[in-house]
Amino acid sequence: MKENTKTALVVSAHSADFVWRAGGAIALHAQQGYDVHIVCLSFGERGESAKLWRLGNMTEAKVKAARREEAEAAAGALGAAAVEFFDIGDYPMRTDKETLFRLADVFRRVQPEFVLSHSLKDPYNYDHPLATHLTQEARIIAQAEGYKPGETVVGAPPVYCFEPHQPEQCEWRPDVLLDITDVWDKKYAAIQCMAGQEHLWEYYTRVALQRGVQAKRNVGITSKRNIVYGEGYQSLFPRVTENLG
Amino acid sequence: MKENTKTALVVSAHSADFVWRAGGAIALHAQQGYDVHIVCLSFGERGESAKLWRLGNMTEAKVKAARREEAEAAAGALGAAAVEFFDIGDYPMRTDKETLFRLADVFRRVQPEFVLSHSLKDPYNYDHPLATHLTQEARIIAQAEGYKPGETVVGAPPVYCFEPHQPEQCEWRPDVLLDITDVWDKKYAAIQCMAGQEHLWEYYTRVALQRGVQAKRNVGITSKRNIVYGEGYQSLFPRVTENLG
Amino acid sequence: MKENTKTALVVSAHSADFVWRAGGAIALHAQQGYDVHIVCLSFGERGESAKLWRLGNMTEAKVKAARREEAEAAAGALGAAAVEFFDIGDYPMRTDKETLFRLADVFRRVQPEFVLSHSLKDPYNYDHPLATHLTQEARIIAQAEGYKPGETVVGAPPVYCFEPHQPEQCEWRPDVLLDITDVWDKKYAAIQCMAGQEHLWEYYTRVALQRGVQAKRNVGITSKRNIVYGEGYQSLFPRVTENLG
Amino acid sequence: MKENTKTALVVSAHSADFVWRAGGAIALHAQQGYDVHIVCLSFGERGESAKLWRLGNMTEAKVKAARREEAEAAAGALGAAAVEFFDIGDYPMRTDKETLFRLADVFRRVQPEFVLSHSLKDPYNYDHPLATHLTQEARIIAQAEGYKPGETVVGAPPVYCFEPHQPEQCEWRPDVLLDITDVWDKKYAAIQCMAGQEHLWEYYTRVALQRGVQAKRNVGITSKRNIVYGEGYQSLFPRVTENLG
Amino acid sequence: MKENTKTALVVSAHSADFVWRAGGAIALHAQQGYDVHIVCLSFGERGESAKLWRLGNMTEAKVKAARREEAEAAAGALGAAAVEFFDIGDYPMRTDKETLFRLADVFRRVQPEFVLSHSLKDPYNYDHPLATHLTQEARIIAQAEGYKPGETVVGAPPVYCFEPHQPEQCEWRPDVLLDITDVWDKKYAAIQCMAGQEHLWEYYTRVALQRGVQAKRNVGITSKRNIVYGEGYQSLFPRVTENLG
Amino acid sequence: MKENTKTALVVSAHSADFVWRAGGAIALHAQQGYDVHIVCLSFGERGESAKLWRLGNMTEAKVKAARREEAEAAAGALGAAAVEFFDIGDYPMRTDKETLFRLADVFRRVQPEFVLSHSLKDPYNYDHPLATHLTQEARIIAQAEGYKPGETVVGAPPVYCFEPHQPEQCEWRPDVLLDITDVWDKKYAAIQCMAGQEHLWEYYTRVALQRGVQAKRNVGITSKRNIVYGEGYQSLFPRVTENLG
Repeated sequence: MKENTKTALVVSAHSADFVWRAGGAIALHAQQGYDVHIVCLSFGERGESAKLWRLGNMTEAKVKAARREEAEAAAGALGAAAVEFFDIGDYPMRTDKETLFRLADVFRRVQPEFVLSHSLKDPYNYDHPLATHLTQEARIIAQAEGYKPGETVVGAPPVYCFEPHQPEQCEWRPDVLLDITDVWDKKYAAIQCMAGQEHLWEYYTRVALQRGVQAKRNVGITSKRNIVYGEGYQSLFPRVTENLG
Repeated sequence: MKENTKTALVVSAHSADFVWRAGGAIALHAQQGYDVHIVCLSFGERGESAKLWRLGNMTEAKVKAARREEAEAAAGALGAAAVEFFDIGDYPMRTDKETLFRLADVFRRVQPEFVLSHSLKDPYNYDHPLATHLTQEARIIAQAEGYKPGETVVGAPPVYCFEPHQPEQCEWRPDVLLDITDVWDKKYAAIQCMAGQEHLWEYYTRVALQRGVQAKRNVGITSKRNIVYGEGYQSLFPRVTENLG
Repeated sequence: MKENTKTALVVSAHSADFVWRAGGAIALHAQQGYDVHIVCLSFGERGESAKLWRLGNMTEAKVKAARREEAEAAAGALGAAAVEFFDIGDYPMRTDKETLFRLADVFRRVQPEFVLSHSLKDPYNYDHPLATHLTQEARIIAQAEGYKPGETVVGAPPVYCFEPHQPEQCEWRPDVLLDITDVWDKKYAAIQCMAGQEHLWEYYTRVALQRGVQAKRNVGITSKRNIVYGEGYQSLFPRVTENLG
Repeated sequence: MKENTKTALVVSAHSADFVWRAGGAIALHAQQGYDVHIVCLSFGERGESAKLWRLGNMTEAKVKAARREEAEAAAGALGAAAVEFFDIGDYPMRTDKETLFRLADVFRRVQPEFVLSHSLKDPYNYDHPLATHLTQEARIIAQAEGYKPGETVVGAPPVYCFEPHQPEQCEWRPDVLLDITDVWDKKYAAIQCMAGQEHLWEYYTRVALQRGVQAKRNVGITSKRNIVYGEGYQSLFPRVTENLG
Repeated sequence: MKENTKTALVVSAHSADFVWRAGGAIALHAQQGYDVHIVCLSFGERGESAKLWRLGNMTEAKVKAARREEAEAAAGALGAAAVEFFDIGDYPMRTDKETLFRLADVFRRVQPEFVLSHSLKDPYNYDHPLATHLTQEARIIAQAEGYKPGETVVGAPPVYCFEPHQPEQCEWRPDVLLDITDVWDKKYAAIQCMAGQEHLWEYYTRVALQRGVQAKRNVGITSKRNIVYGEGYQSLFPRVTENLG
Repeated sequence: MKENTKTALVVSAHSADFVWRAGGAIALHAQQGYDVHIVCLSFGERGESAKLWRLGNMTEAKVKAARREEAEAAAGALGAAAVEFFDIGDYPMRTDKETLFRLADVFRRVQPEFVLSHSLKDPYNYDHPLATHLTQEARIIAQAEGYKPGETVVGAPPVYCFEPHQPEQCEWRPDVLLDITDVWDKKYAAIQCMAGQEHLWEYYTRVALQRGVQAKRNVGITSKRNIVYGEGYQSLFPRVTENLG
């Protein structure tokens, strides 16, 4: 990683989540000069690859390969610095200390300015909150002087939960609306890499438009900012600032 | 108000609340060039002037005069642009349409970049949440084209709840920690103007120190920011941004 | 009202709310033979008629007349049995005992099978929750034997909150998804009657599509129900049933 | 009131609430030597006297008289020191400053050790939470040195919410279970004074038995305390203690 | 399983839970023609068999055998189609992938119209929420095309939480009240099979009566439905409907 | 343990937590004659020993030894009857059945009157809530007749959560304020044993002063109790009582 480059970390339970839910943030910060590092804990091979399985004559290895290809293409379209696959399996996802330390080591290496992961609850998908809790705990491990003493510990990067599929049922509530209008074309290009989930393309386009309208409303009708597309985030820690304006 | 000067609005139920709870924010933004406008809905003459009443030979008019003097001195110490007294009475505070429109007119006149008021709940003090709801509704009125048509409506300034006396009992939870280290001397000078409530001076100094430690922790132990004093705020609307770092 | 006809009651704070938020439910139940009665507490003349005010040379009376016309056209397009205007003003809306009794009398007269109104909270709009609480209290009054003794009291019709503009900020969470696919054309026709708020047409079309996708997901991918458009509702009372399937 | 006698205050929205919901606490503390003072804000003449209204040939005055008689008999059966009727009307109940000050004056006069009233929410009954909020605010007024200066202010008596009719729907959650086994006979005698609501006698007997079983469980199966009947309470303020056992 | 027969699945942490908490639903749907399949994850041999252990000269095997006999008798009395014992142990209950897949396979085999299990929280019993989460995750696995590809996946059957022992402490809130009046005799017969927990027979009879009264109240005093016994349920997903009446 | 001596149990995730968070309760009850038994699940060797690690030339064994020495000194200063170290590791802490049974056996041996542990949530520290849940489940195991049949089971001792570092972020809300004024000198002596975390001495002194002020306020300004230092606790179960005063 280049000296003085700002960085960010995105932890995605399945290999497509980062596209639908955080593609705008990735593209926007990449455009601002951040090295955005993506970790996909699984390929979503069991739970989010229905279309591939229905093709018939399919194996888990083939599904994973197809999903990897899609995810790499999408990460490229977004301008991410790197995408890494932990391949720990999905439906159900399970984590152990080894996975935890592996992710803590990513925190140490990347030293992110901010972190994105899933919502804290999701009754439709148990892998999602598991990914968030793994991320939170890995961040804590990476902050501890006693873990691999001598290495540079991480600071206290803010953690944001990106939007789940059914926000109200997940008790997710956005307190940050990110204006992604400038990079929408990149996000939509990344979305189109997800050939196996075409039914979601328009769904997430509408999500972006709705969050854009809400962002516009929250800056006020008199504002000159021309916001069309947005992404919602819920922050898990208080932000520290010197200005409330 | 000067052209191009940024502004802020603080709505305080009683004439001392703005000092304990938002004095740091007022001083900090004044120092940054904001015109900070303070509205005190009452003088706290019944409910927060115990020391004066115990002097004996006291009338409500005398209490109000003493409280006004203290509040004006404190506002001056903080560098506020203006302090205005609605004098609507306390314990109990009651509001009507006239008060609502009067405050909406302040919003129209001040056109604040942000707004500070009390927590949404307070089982120890019914005047406090009433002030917040009045503020919220006045902001909504001031946004409406149909209220005094032709006037310039206000945008959507963020609203922050400052810290109540017993935060957990008020279900208040800070999501913003403001670093007020640079202006602590001004806040403490303002606090000292509140001669009638000397028992609270050290209490709110400790509040500021605790929020400072928490702010320090939330930027991370590795940060070079030297935060000593803080103020906590809870935001009522999502913030719109183009950067999550 | 005809003998044996089922009825429903919709209480709308402003004259367009029932269209965006409950148009599908109104059209669907009308199609099923219900007499749907709509009460608009105000015309939204101050707070939701920005486009009219910007025309210039406008008075409150003119705005109300234009809004009434739109609302009546929309109610007609939806097949509602009646639309009634209380004209109690908006921004701010205030209610007194007279309004409460007037609405209780509507409950007594209509004897609704179910009731629709706004969410319980809305930090962007104080008129909305006020309408809901008025509705809830009117329902309670109408149930009381001691209110206008001798009249037929109402039963315990379920009350549903329709969807606010920014659901998560309003702490609104749908527990019912209504399939409005069959009547979408009528809802969209009604939406098009709202000439003054054209910017919302596509917003609420997208809302309907998102709720449709969610409804589809909640009946299961294997279901043969072809749901495209939906409306979300939050119920305020437990439902009583003899079947959980 | 006798010197050195401990006192308690119960604020009941309608004239029967104190019996069903707090009868055990009243009898128990009376037996312990407390002067328990009951305030009934209304007679429940409209909303909770269905049986009387159905008798026909009834007037509000007659209903009130009958309800007063029942309530006085019940208060007597419980050993209450006094029962007072504010007669402010029900369905809907409304309060003004005069009522607030009247109740604050009761606080000043009674100087209660503790206070009982309704739950903070009740979607089935809007009078109930209104009574609680009136009580809370009256307590605050009575604490203020500036209200009728020179009178003895009240301390900070704990406030408990007694059990509503449908606890879960009212978001009421007991954190105190009162063992009323010793005084159950008195509570049941008081319940039997409520001739107009005989359908509730067995309902509230079962409530007492269920809370008794729960109390037994919360002291532990190995405890020798023989708890059969209980009442649940939710406290609104932290309790201050020197022992956690 | 017979072609075209509707089915339901009940997942019970211990072998008696399904009787106290869902016996009415089982009997009612069995009477309506459903094949109701019960899974008992454990026999409750450690935690819910105190009476047996106190007999002395007892082993875990003997306790399990006795509990199995009781549970089978109860399931028979309710008319359940099948009862299956996973025997994974209790106090503490622990689950692994094997148990999860075993339950997912039950979902695939039974293809339930609806699912019943415990509350999401229970500070008195850690096995209960664990059973619910296992059920929820097994449902998700069974929905995934990639789990045992080629098998018929399940749809999205609604999941309901049945009533815990102390509802308010478990943050459980019923949004469905099931009228079980018609099958109460069957439920009480099943309850009487639980010889080892006779102290709970009357407790759960009272629970049924209270929920019956509440159900009656929620359909309204004017309703002709004669509801005496009820069971409360909390739904975990929105229901999809075409009628709100 | 002496016959008839009352006992208490404190479960501390790391070896210093019991000092900052529950030192006052320990000293106060020791002074009242309780045998207070402390279990430290880990030494906090990785996560809470930054100062030691920064000394250089350090090993985990050395850190543990230093932390043990500090904790034993602090326990002594507080007058605790015993302090026991489970040494299960921290950052991350993980528990298995063996640890659970070990702690259940402590419950059986100590038979505590009350139990203290961490908050239920803590986004800054995943070991803390894990300790609480372990404690809760061990208590449940120790209550079960079927766990080590023949041993004396435990009753239902109340469980209190002590104060986390950032209370609002942990959704911790005190409902008990313990007056520790009489034993503050002992708590501060114990705090001074924590040489490795000197930066926290004044922080937790201020916490005690703030909770003292709040306790004073919650007993009322007119009370003669001279409270200066306090500790806050959140109870997890309802308390059973015969007096509400």
